[in-house]
Amino acid sequence: MRIAILGTGLVGKTIGDKLVSIGHEVRMGSRDSDKAAAWSKEAGRGASHGTFAEAAAFGEVAFNCTAGTGSLAALDAAGRENLANKILLDVSNPLDFSKGRPPTLTILNTDSLGEAIQRQLPDTRVVKTLNTMNCRIMVDAARVPGEHDVFVAGNDPDARAQVSRWLKEWFGWKAPVDLGDITASRGLEMWLPLWLRIMSSVKTPDFNVKIVR
Amino acid sequence: MRIAILGTGLVGKTIGDKLVSIGHEVRMGSRDSDKAAAWSKEAGRGASHGTFAEAAAFGEVAFNCTAGTGSLAALDAAGRENLANKILLDVSNPLDFSKGRPPTLTILNTDSLGEAIQRQLPDTRVVKTLNTMNCRIMVDAARVPGEHDVFVAGNDPDARAQVSRWLKEWFGWKAPVDLGDITASRGLEMWLPLWLRIMSSVKTPDFNVKIVR
Repeated sequence: MRIAILGTGLVGKTIGDKLVSIGHEVRMGSRDSDKAAAWSKEAGRGASHGTFAEAAAFGEVAFNCTAGTGSLAALDAAGRENLANKILLDVSNPLDFSKGRPPTLTILNTDSLGEAIQRQLPDTRVVKTLNTMNCRIMVDAARVPGEHDVFVAGNDPDARAQVSRWLKEWFGWKAPVDLGDITASRGLEMWLPLWLRIMSSVKTPDFNVKIVR
Repeated sequence: MRIAILGTGLVGKTIGDKLVSIGHEVRMGSRDSDKAAAWSKEAGRGASHGTFAEAAAFGEVAFNCTAGTGSLAALDAAGRENLANKILLDVSNPLDFSKGRPPTLTILNTDSLGEAIQRQLPDTRVVKTLNTMNCRIMVDAARVPGEHDVFVAGNDPDARAQVSRWLKEWFGWKAPVDLGDITASRGLEMWLPLWLRIMSSVKTPDFNVKIVR
């Protein structure tokens, strides 16, 4: 498949590397073309780079891997028309580190970044997923041994089902938990403060949660 | 032990019943003495009731089981002096249902109810715990089969350790996860919106999370 990665941070590079490694054509979009160019050179065959708009136009599907505080601007640059009728996997978290640690959330409680992105891109099927864990686990569920969970949330049931199949096929997630419409992004993003505290307690980002019944 | 339960809702009654059943003297405190009286009559030997202040004065340790939006007022009524030099297990969540469902949080992100309670009761060692799950699981870890986790957070390490021992002895929690100081209440309380969505997805409140490494 042709896949757009928006964002040049560790999350974007990790997802891009994985998708290239399993044979997809991946175009990384960025504001700073140097970073995306460096990635595509290193990632090799199948990898390319461009502006946010060029990557979005190229992809049959796109990942939002930009920093949450810059996501709406990046997606504006990507262009509503370039993402129309496509699925956008939104992996971002609206974390604000500008006042130090711990970060705070810039949008929460009665709204979420996932919802704000869906409002800004009404022709795109936004699916919030993977934002609840470290990026090395996102692309390799088996990195954490045993059973543990990933979530999907978005307004379109078919898009949630399609993303669930991709998560299985690409990254090894056996049974993503369907949380329904995009308003579940509130809870998925508000999980981050607890994730950060648990990381401090267990002293590694290599953990995930399992819903036990 | 002599234990105070502040609050007459399902959480307070469930914790009170369990503690009475294992031989403790439990006094339920309330604003509405009828409800607490009805509970103590039903709970039988070891159970008693009184005002918030009477219960707080009676307990060697106290549970805050009041609704989060009323916790600060209830604890003010309980009296700083009656809770001084004691551990308060804070089980509450600052959920506001006044505008319907889903509820929102009244305090979050840069603060939490656990922190607000600790500020209001500087002579008390507040330990946030158990608020991340349904009350039937709080008092009976084995209700959910297999391994899953409970958290403790509070400014005093000895109080966290003591609460961890009580959680094991009273409710069967083998290894509570220590999240450090009371600011972890932010994450523990902001977990609730995700908990509610997961409950809708799995269609039962009988679930809990396990941190998998």
